[in-house]
Formats: sequence, structure tokens, C-alpha cells
Amino acid sequence: MTELWRDPSAHVDDRVADLVSRMTLTEKVAQLSGVWWLDPDAGGMAPMLRESVGPLPSWTEVVEDGLGQLTRTFGTAPLEPAEGLQILADRQRDVMAANRFGIPALAHEECLTGLAVWRATIYPSPLCWAASFDPVLVERMAAQIAGTMRSLGIHQGLAPVLDVVRDLRWGRVEETLGEDPFLVGLVGSAYVRGLEDGGIVSTLKHFLGYSASRAARNLAPVAIGPRELADVILPPFEMALRAGARSVMNSYTDLDGVPAAADAELLTTLLRERLGFTGTVASDYFSVAFLQTLHRVADGLGEAAGLALEAGIDVELPSTNAFGAPLLEVLAAGRVEEKVIDRALFRVLRQKCELGLLDPGWAPVAVTDVDLDDAESRALALELARRSVVLLANDGSLPLSAGATVAIVGPRADTSQAMLGCYSFPMHVLVHHPGVEDGVEIRTVREALADTFDVSYALGCPVLGGEDADIEAAAAVAADAEVCVVVLGDQAGLFGKGTSGEGCDVADLDLPGRQEELLEALIGTGTPVVAVLLVGRPYDLSRQVDRLAGLVCGFFPGEEGAQAIADVLSGRVNPSGRLPVSFPGAGSTQPSTYLASPLGRRNEVSVVDPTPLFGFGHGLSYAAATWGAVSTPSGPRWGTDGTCDLVVELANEADRDVSEVVQVYLHDRSASVVRPVQQLVGAVRVDLEVGQSASVRFALSADLTSFTGRDLVRIVEPGKVELWVGASSTDIREVLPLELVGPVRMVGVERALEPAVTVEIA
Amino acid sequence: MTELWRDPSAHVDDRVADLVSRMTLTEKVAQLSGVWWLDPDAGGMAPMLRESVGPLPSWTEVVEDGLGQLTRTFGTAPLEPAEGLQILADRQRDVMAANRFGIPALAHEECLTGLAVWRATIYPSPLCWAASFDPVLVERMAAQIAGTMRSLGIHQGLAPVLDVVRDLRWGRVEETLGEDPFLVGLVGSAYVRGLEDGGIVSTLKHFLGYSASRAARNLAPVAIGPRELADVILPPFEMALRAGARSVMNSYTDLDGVPAAADAELLTTLLRERLGFTGTVASDYFSVAFLQTLHRVADGLGEAAGLALEAGIDVELPSTNAFGAPLLEVLAAGRVEEKVIDRALFRVLRQKCELGLLDPGWAPVAVTDVDLDDAESRALALELARRSVVLLANDGSLPLSAGATVAIVGPRADTSQAMLGCYSFPMHVLVHHPGVEDGVEIRTVREALADTFDVSYALGCPVLGGEDADIEAAAAVAADAEVCVVVLGDQAGLFGKGTSGEGCDVADLDLPGRQEELLEALIGTGTPVVAVLLVGRPYDLSRQVDRLAGLVCGFFPGEEGAQAIADVLSGRVNPSGRLPVSFPGAGSTQPSTYLASPLGRRNEVSVVDPTPLFGFGHGLSYAAATWGAVSTPSGPRWGTDGTCDLVVELANEADRDVSEVVQVYLHDRSASVVRPVQQLVGAVRVDLEVGQSASVRFALSADLTSFTGRDLVRIVEPGKVELWVGASSTDIREVLPLELVGPVRMVGVERALEPAVTVEIA
Repeated sequence: MTELWRDPSAHVDDRVADLVSRMTLTEKVAQLSGVWWLDPDAGGMAPMLRESVGPLPSWTEVVEDGLGQLTRTFGTAPLEPAEGLQILADRQRDVMAANRFGIPALAHEECLTGLAVWRATIYPSPLCWAASFDPVLVERMAAQIAGTMRSLGIHQGLAPVLDVVRDLRWGRVEETLGEDPFLVGLVGSAYVRGLEDGGIVSTLKHFLGYSASRAARNLAPVAIGPRELADVILPPFEMALRAGARSVMNSYTDLDGVPAAADAELLTTLLRERLGFTGTVASDYFSVAFLQTLHRVADGLGEAAGLALEAGIDVELPSTNAFGAPLLEVLAAGRVEEKVIDRALFRVLRQKCELGLLDPGWAPVAVTDVDLDDAESRALALELARRSVVLLANDGSLPLSAGATVAIVGPRADTSQAMLGCYSFPMHVLVHHPGVEDGVEIRTVREALADTFDVSYALGCPVLGGEDADIEAAAAVAADAEVCVVVLGDQAGLFGKGTSGEGCDVADLDLPGRQEELLEALIGTGTPVVAVLLVGRPYDLSRQVDRLAGLVCGFFPGEEGAQAIADVLSGRVNPSGRLPVSFPGAGSTQPSTYLASPLGRRNEVSVVDPTPLFGFGHGLSYAAATWGAVSTPSGPRWGTDGTCDLVVELANEADRDVSEVVQVYLHDRSASVVRPVQQLVGAVRVDLEVGQSASVRFALSADLTSFTGRDLVRIVEPGKVELWVGASSTDIREVLPLELVGPVRMVGVERALEPAVTVEIA
Repeated sequence: MTELWRDPSAHVDDRVADLVSRMTLTEKVAQLSGVWWLDPDAGGMAPMLRESVGPLPSWTEVVEDGLGQLTRTFGTAPLEPAEGLQILADRQRDVMAANRFGIPALAHEECLTGLAVWRATIYPSPLCWAASFDPVLVERMAAQIAGTMRSLGIHQGLAPVLDVVRDLRWGRVEETLGEDPFLVGLVGSAYVRGLEDGGIVSTLKHFLGYSASRAARNLAPVAIGPRELADVILPPFEMALRAGARSVMNSYTDLDGVPAAADAELLTTLLRERLGFTGTVASDYFSVAFLQTLHRVADGLGEAAGLALEAGIDVELPSTNAFGAPLLEVLAAGRVEEKVIDRALFRVLRQKCELGLLDPGWAPVAVTDVDLDDAESRALALELARRSVVLLANDGSLPLSAGATVAIVGPRADTSQAMLGCYSFPMHVLVHHPGVEDGVEIRTVREALADTFDVSYALGCPVLGGEDADIEAAAAVAADAEVCVVVLGDQAGLFGKGTSGEGCDVADLDLPGRQEELLEALIGTGTPVVAVLLVGRPYDLSRQVDRLAGLVCGFFPGEEGAQAIADVLSGRVNPSGRLPVSFPGAGSTQPSTYLASPLGRRNEVSVVDPTPLFGFGHGLSYAAATWGAVSTPSGPRWGTDGTCDLVVELANEADRDVSEVVQVYLHDRSASVVRPVQQLVGAVRVDLEVGQSASVRFALSADLTSFTGRDLVRIVEPGKVELWVGASSTDIREVLPLELVGPVRMVGVERALEPAVTVEIA
């Protein structure tokens, strides 16, 4: 008779319970961690990384009791897809053969800007997704990524990053969806839907508070209170969990002295008991060990393992540091109870069961040649890039005149790396494989512009450093042209290998290296200068902006980014991206975001003015929609348990297609706690062909006005509010005064997190 | 028969209860606020200030129901002491005559760097007190200040500031006692003892969390959790309350969305119920109204008044904005209960009663000529300044050779204002009275050095701005001398009138204006350059420090500061100050202080290195004590309810008097929450004449190792710790491993806050 756990027709919980009951403690523990198998024959790994992972046991030892996870089988070195498939299949067969139950490992990879594997499509980075304000397109992208992952036998992707930007100095800003919780949640949950509907386990990062680290230093302590945590940091996770995310990854940081990886209040009370999460919690890489080595709340790896398990970490990644021998030791000594092992194991096996990994006949994906960068993927990458480029300023010089002679200058003008974030395969891994090509075709801005314009070129300076002579030479090239396009920005990389990316925090927001000098030299020529920023974070352009002919921000737009930039500069595409992060103003300081109370903004009690140069949601177009009436048909009274209908009329009276992002901000005039001056509660992108008009209707539940009150309970509070409706946080077209009427109403995790939006095009 | 409340032999509570029972609501409310009487005939007030105060009613209306407080009668305009005494006496008589009970007002003034009144001694600023590590001397200074205040009929002084520095960009850093809670508490409570033993009500500022405002912008929101609040921000207040402080002032800021002025958890539950405070809580100036205008948690001044009273604010300062007609209105409407009025009134009247203001025969201080800057006060100001000057670096050029020709350069070299903080009378008030002299004799560094050396002088540049030619001229002067002393620093002032002071926050820690350029020009001459900093905060000297002959920091050393600086430069005084705030290192960022966990310090996970150039507690001397044995006679085991004895042997083997500050840091190797790498738990200054030796004994209660644990309860936790004993946080002379043994022990507010220290000189 078939054992119950092998029966696909049985209930998953019964199958898992049966299986758990048959396992030895050693077998159980083996399911709770992974291995990052750095096969010396399969291509080098960074020495730093190898050190962190520690000396590996033999492969036989790794698999002898089973194995929970296979870490980045594809994404660790440049492998041809078929080669990776072969390795994964071999390893899975070894894993299955080695344990009594034949359970394969769950395979995970990074997938932030597309699957982080050699030869796979590199999509625009998350700041671009957010700049597009286009969750539908982001969902399509994620679904495409899921298909790619499925075709390789990968089960879980370590994305999206839902950390709300609090300080632009942080190196990981490029991985985020910006500084507004609603936008992060809107776009992040679209990504989650795409991945999950495609059968891939998405992993929400980083639970909770990572982005608020002191002075934006990576992993530094987080000072935060429960209200900011609930009202700013948490909502994107609530939205993404509702979208079906099946895994969550802890934040590396401590919150007010308690490391997230050891915090049962976060990982169990909040995440599971309040938010109802039933999936797995995976440790961010090495973070269980960090409880001992960096946070010093554990006296040894065994204690660290116990703390993490008790808090609610189910899986240790990337390899078995603490959830192996050290854990077995403290279990044997009775310092950790077996029931916490069983709790984690149940979750891990349930996920494997749901993924079919416990089913009879499960087999690794067959080895074939797979095209990881097919035409459909490239087209999606291009479409998203085009919709995410932000035109920040334009004196009328843009689009460039057809036939203009264009001097192309700058450290990011003629390199494919300019398009790529820190979690793209080239920047994340190939940096350790000098000479290996990108794996996908990535054009440069210079190449893309040369399709259309008569171009000249000079480097000017590298991202960091440079010589006076090269800056002068670039100025000479600019002087000879009708217009100069200077492409400035970051080199993405990890831990000091770049100017943006994980560990690459900065002390100020000046452009890296000598790029500001280069820009000044170019402006000094008198040739109109259009600056294109390919950056992981906003920089201070306040000293130059008034002397620029145009300013365009592409963040890291992915493998088709150069084409998208060229399309915008040439006018083939009407720019329509909107900023998900503010650009800093002159003399402003960090931390600072648009989401601030009156005392967090410019005022008379401090001489330091945090007003941004370009505010959240800002973005220009060559032709824009005409705004008509903005009204609330439901009237000026808004029940504290009711819905406010907001209608915005738009028309395209221009001679080309336009795209508008209608943004709805809540302004709470007076409340029982301090509230931000404005906060995004609704946004929708509306595309209008020539002559079309649109009626955009938001049904705003009063839940969207809720906040964490004095008693740390979320409430809708009666009183006067306003809806500020506009094209950006600083371009408000209509202020609608409303009164929330009725009793104070408590709302829980079931509350509405976004408005219902309908767009009728006529 | 005498009414009970008039009987000095009756119990104060009975007297107050009797009085309260006789008062009308209007009379009650009148006791709860003050008036800042800006008599147009008595000298101008800043227009801005006048605006904030609003239009004043007539004097008759002000006093008709009695009056709680008279705000800064002396400190608002330059008055001769006798003139001020006359005004105060007249006003008190009016107040007494106007109310049915003849109750005078309580008179308060600012007294942060001495009484902030024209012609009164200007002592070194708080950073200097802390740099002296000399609480005994600070207590003497405060006692002297109290005497001066008593002689003028002043009852309450609005000092000290106990905010622990969290971010050096804050304008009010100059008003603080630095970045370590223990040092702030040690020195702050000494000040409180001096003031209170002298009969003056001291006022602890600012309760709670002001210094942790976002990006160090004045009044900006504070993100903080309960553990940091309890372990870093609160302890100085605990120490100062134990020292007898009778008044507390709220912080302007909100903590995680709740303004301190409206926070009953802070002002009642914590301050009164947990800490046992029975004195008065006064609102920081205008902060009740700010609940409406800046925090927007009140819809009108009446609601603001109600919120503040209910939270625990007893007195509105500086004038009656909310605690007058608006309050009476909400009382009449039943929106505020009379019992909260009575609660505040009881506290206010009890304080008046204790001060003798309810006693029959009370009369204002007689009008006489008072010397507010007598020889004893000046001598104290000099002694404290001498003991607070910090020698940061010295290549051997200091002390200056006798007979050297000295070029004196710099914006702070020849101005008395260089010595003065933002709360000194000249910088706080005289800025509105151009042409009026300082009121006390304040020499400049140039003048003081000219006593000893053959000096030349050039300005170089002002604090802000300046001309190339002046910098070149200064370099020429320097080139002609044997040594150059450049005096750099801040102009203290309020709200944009200075580079340091209230509202004068900064965006970075570069020296203001062109001072760094000036410094480079001087270094470029090849003449050895000694830089003297007269500053309100540390600045980044990392680019020059290796090329300086010497670097001296005086902060704002008060009216005798120039003499103290000259004494140090000439070698008459052996420098002995120690830094209460770290100087920033190259590329470091804010917020950052020495009080940081491993992840708050330099590490491999962020490229931004917060390591300071000069760490907390750093300071050199021309001759130093010789360190002998450092031991723990009580052995390596330290009961969780026990005391560790630490003995440090010092000897003066030099040929001149020396002074050492023995600093004891706790290092907790592993704990249940994240702990700072090191934290000051004991410090004592030891003065040794030639040939003397000292045995310094610290009795360290295990309470000093306590911290706020997982459950937000303060605990002493068993485990391995170390005492790091040294001459600064970065100059540790001995590491003593210890083991805390015994059960986890909960400790409460009664716990030991400082070690018992004995110094035996032989």
C-alpha cells in the first residue's frame, strides 16, 4: 500500500503530517537548509563569498540525509542553460537518491531584474517598474520571468524587494520600488501575482524595516517606532501577501535592538498570526549566523539556530551554517525543542508538496536547449523600459531635432553595464569572470542613438576618477556638435564593486567621481546639454538643472534600455515615466522623503530645507493629456465606513498618443496623531490615443484614510480631509475638501489596501 | 483668623488645597501660563519673536486674574540689573495687587551658559562642561549661577539640556553635554544640584527625544523605539531627577507620530508614575500652540490646550496662547474637565508655596546695584574653560615656544562672539540690539595671545563668505611668522542668524563658509599651523589633520575662553579636556555616535565607514599620568546583584601637574538584545601634582550593566562582559574579562545609575 504522503489525492496537510512522522531528527533538520554548492570545476566564485559560505563538506555528506534547498544552481557562474539543467538534474537525482524518501530539493534563484542567470533576459530594474506606474505590464513581465524559471526547473525566486525607501544614501535603493508604500505595494504585488500565477514561489524582501537603517548604512541598526512600521513599512507586504506570495525573507537589520531574524513578534505574531501567512520564511543569506557574528545576540551558531527557528525562520539560506550540526547539538542538549523543528519542517514540506515535489514520478526538468531571452521577453523588456523613462526637465530642446549632430559623452554612454542593476547576472556574478560576455545582447546609448543621429563620442571620465585631459577632450567634442547628450550615472555592484548596489552606500548624493565636473565642462561649451541619468538612486542635480537643455532619468533600464532612451530622446516615444523617488534639492539632507509631516518638510524652525528638486511622482511628456473636471459624485461627506467616488476626466487634445498618471493624494488636516502632509492613496496610468478621452473613476474606501492611532490600533477617524488630485505630488490639479463622517472605526488586516479603479476610454 | 493657605506652618499640600478651593476657574487658569511682556518702551524685541507671541493684551488684562509666570523679565532686552530689578518688582506688585489672593508670579529666565541676562557672567557652554569631565566644578558653577539668579528675584532657570546627541548636524548640539548618556547625566545632574541647592528651580530639557529628529532638522519627527528611548535618551533625566530637579520641559518633537506635548505616556505615565516626579512640567516655548500649527493634532488652540493639560503639561510658556481664552472656551463647552486644571494648578501652586511665594509678607527683591559678573564668577568661568579645552592633535609644536612670532588668523581670532553659544545673552538677544556692547568683558584670542607672544593678525575670511584677496593676505601674514594660529569656527545664533544654534542645523559637517580654503592656504605656506576650533559642533578636519602642527578645540568657552585658549597654547595650562562628542572621520555619515553596535560601526557589509577621526573621550595633554595596575579586587565573577570593584593606579611621573580622566567602558559580549560595542559606565577626573600618585576605586553595581530586554523590562543579564578601562573610548589601556553570574535580575527606576568612586591621592 502506498504511504499516505506519496498519495497526490490526499490532503496536503495529511501527507505532510504522515511524512514528518516518519522522519528522523537528522532528516528533519536536513530539510531546513540549503546548499550553495560552489563546485570548483563549474566556474569560480568570489573568494569573499567562498569565505562566507565556509568550507563545504563533500557532496555526499551534503545530501546524505536529504536537502531542503539548492541555492542558485544556475545563477552562481556563467552556465549555458543546458549545462545548468544538466547540473540541476544531476544534483536533484543525487538528493533524491540519498534520502530515504526520495524528496528532491527546492531550487531557488535570484530574479529581481529578470532571472539572474546567464543568457536570461535582463529587464528594467525595480525603480523602472515603479516609474512606469504600470502594474499590468509589471505583472506580464513577472509572468514571463516565471515561465523562464519553470523551464529551468526552478521553484522559488528571491524577489520582489518591498522595502520602502527612507534614505537615498542606501546602496539598495536601486532594488526597491521607491519611497511611497502604496506604489511599492501596487507594483510589488503585481510582480508577485505574475510570479505566483506562473507557478513560482515569490519571496517578499525584507521583513521588516531594512531600508530604515541608520544613516542608510547597509545592515545598520534601525530606529523606528511601531506606528511608522505599521503605516509606512508594512503596507506593501500586506498587499503582496494578499497577492499570493508564498515566501518571506527576513531583514538583516535589528529593529530597536532586536534582529528581525530572531524576532518572533515580527515573524510569527505579526506575519502569521495577524496577517495569516502560511508559507515559508527563508533567512536572508547568512543572517542566522549573523545573529552570532554581527548582532551578537547568540553565543554560538547553535544558539543562533534556535533563536531563528523559535522566531519563525523556517529555512536557512544560502547554505547550512547554523541549521546543521550546530542545531543538532543544541537539540541534543535540550536547548531547542523539537517542536520548533517540526513547525518549520511542516511549512517546508507543505510547500514542496504543493509544488509537486513529493509526488510519485516527480523528475527534474529534461535537459534541452532553452532560449532564455526570446523575442517576446525582449519585447516586454523594451516596452517596460520605454514606459519607465522619466523626463525630468526640458527647455524645449527635446526631442532632439531630426538630423542634429549629437555629441555623446560620459561614462555611461557607451557601456552595456550602464543598463544593469546590481542583481543582474553580469553585475552580480560576471564581475568574478572577467572576459565573459554579458550573455544577452545589450546595446549602449551611443549605439542606439547612432541609428538615428549623426553622432560623435568621447568618454569624458569614468564613473569614478578620470583625467583633466579627457574632460577637456569631451568638451571639445561637445563644442563641435549641435547638441550634447551626456550619459552619467552609477556602476552597479556589490560591496564596494560599484557606486550603487548592496553594500555600496554613499556619504552624500553628489554624482560619483568627477561626473559633476564633466557636466560643468560640457555646459561651459555653450552647446545645449541633455543629461541622461542611468542611476541606482537620485543624485543632486540642483547646481546644473537650470542650465541643462534637458534631463532624463532611466535608472537601470535593462537590456533594451538604450533603445528606450534613444526612443525618448528622438521623440519616437512620448516620455511617460514618473519618479518613484524624489530627487534631492539644494542643501537638502537625508533621510528625507516626500512622505513627511509639516515638521518633516520646509518650515521656519530649521534652516535646512528638505524640499526636493523633483518631487515624488514628477515626470514630463512631450505632449500631455488635458485635464477636465475632477469631482466627487458621492459628495463632500465620506462615511468612515463608506466609499468616496472620485472621477477625473482626461482628454488627448494633442497630436500624438499621450499617457497620464493620475495621482490621488490624501491630506489629513488634523488627526489624533501626526500625519504626512500628503500620501498617495490611488494612482492609475491612462494611455490615450489622439482624440480619445477618458473618465477615470476611483472608488476610495475610507479604509484608505486609516492610520495607526494613539492606541496602536488602526482606525478611520472622522474629520476634515482633502483629496489632492494631480499629475505629481507637486503638480496638484484639484483639491477636493471632504469630511469623514461617522464614528471612529477600527480596521484590521482585512481592510481595503487600494481603491477600485475603472478607466472608460471614449 | 488667617486662611489656612497663608499659614507657613501648615503642610504645603493642605495650604494648596485650601487655596485651590477658593479660586474661580478663571483664576485657576491664570496660574497656568505666563506672559512674555514685551514692553515697547523697554527696548525692542525681534519682530519674529513678537509675531510668535502674538498681539499682547493690555498689562491690566494680563494680570487681572493673577499670573502664573513672568517670562524673561531680565533676559529680553539689555537692562542694567537695577533697572531689571525695578521692572520685576513693579510687575510683581501689579500681579499681587490684581489678584484676590496676592499671589506673585514665578519668574523664570534662561541660564544655560550662565544667567542669560545683560552684564551677567557668561560661562563656558555645556559641551565645555562635559569636556571637563568635572562634575564638581560644574556644580560650583551652577551654584554660583543660582546665587546670581536669587539676587535678582528669579525663581526658575530653563536649564540644563539633557538631550543625548544622536546626529551632529543638529543646531543645538552646542547646548548639549554630548553623545554619551552617562556623561550627560553625570555632568547634567551636577548642574542640577548646584542650581537646586542654590534655591533655583532647574528645568530639564527636553522630555523626550528631541535630539533624534530626522536628519537632525530642528523639531523634525523622531523615529525611535522604546528600547533606545529607555537606554540612551532617558538615563540622563533619571540622574537629574534624582539630583532634585523640580521642573521638566517637553520636547518639541513628535515620537513616532505622537508629539511629546500631547503624550500622557511620556509626561504622566513615565515621568510621574514611573519616575516619581512631583514638580511642574512647563511647555517649551509655543509648543502648545504648535500642536495645532505644526503637528496638526489639534483643531484649534482650545483643543491643543486640552491635549497638553491631559498629557501632563502644567504651565504654558512663554505667554498665554492656548492656556487662556481658548482653554476657558473648551472648559465651558465641557470638552476639557476641570480636574485636569486642578491637577496642574496644584503642582504650580505647590511650587510657588515651596518657594515662599504664598507666604505673608513676601516681597520682591529690593532694587540695588548688583554685580552679576563678580571676580568669583569670572574665576570660575576661567577655571572651567581651562579644564575643558581639548588638545586633539599635536606634532610637538605645542605649547608654542616662548618668544615665537605668531601669526593669528581666522574669522574667530579677534571677536568676542567666538566665545559665546547661542543661549548667551549677546548671541540670543543683543543680535536685535545692534551697537549695544556685550555687557561683560570678553577678550579675543588675538588679545589674549598678544599678552605673551609677538603677534601679527589677518582675518582671512569671515565665518561665511569672504574674498580670495583676504585669504591670500592672511597666507602672507602666516608666511612671515614662525607659527600660525588660525582660529576657526561657528557664529552662534538662532534660526539662521548663525552657523550653530537653535534652528541652525547643517547639511554636512564641512567647516562653514570658506574656512577650509583658508586653512589649506595657511598650510600651504609651510609655516606650522595650529588650528583652534571655537565651534558648536565637531567638523570634518580629516583632510587637514595630518598636516597640522596642532589642533585644539574649545567649543564655546565663555567670557574667559580666550584666556584659557592662550593658557593652553602657551603651556601655562596643561590641556586636559576630553571630547564629549566624536569628530567625524573621512567619508563618515550622520547620524552616528560612538554608542553603536557592531553593525553601527565599520564593518564589511557597508562601504561607508563611520569611524570617527577623534573618538569620544579623546584628548591629549602636554604631560600625562602614568598608568599602573588596573585590577578588579572583587575577582572575575560579578554577581548579577553584586558589585564589581575596579582599581586603577595612576602616578604623576612628569615634571608638571597632570590631569587624567579615567574612563570605564562596558563591553557586553553577547546579550539577548543588540548592545553597543562599548558604553561608558564610569569616569573620573584625577588631578595629580608632581610626584603624586592616586588609587582610583570604582564600585560598579551590576545595575550599570542593565539594559532593556526583550520584554521591555530592564534587566541585568548573566554572561560574559568586559570592562574596557582607558584614557578614551579609543585608547583602552586594559581589558578586564568578567562573568556576570546569578539569575537574570529585573531592575527598576531605583537602580544604581553611577558607580561610587573614590580617589586616594598619595
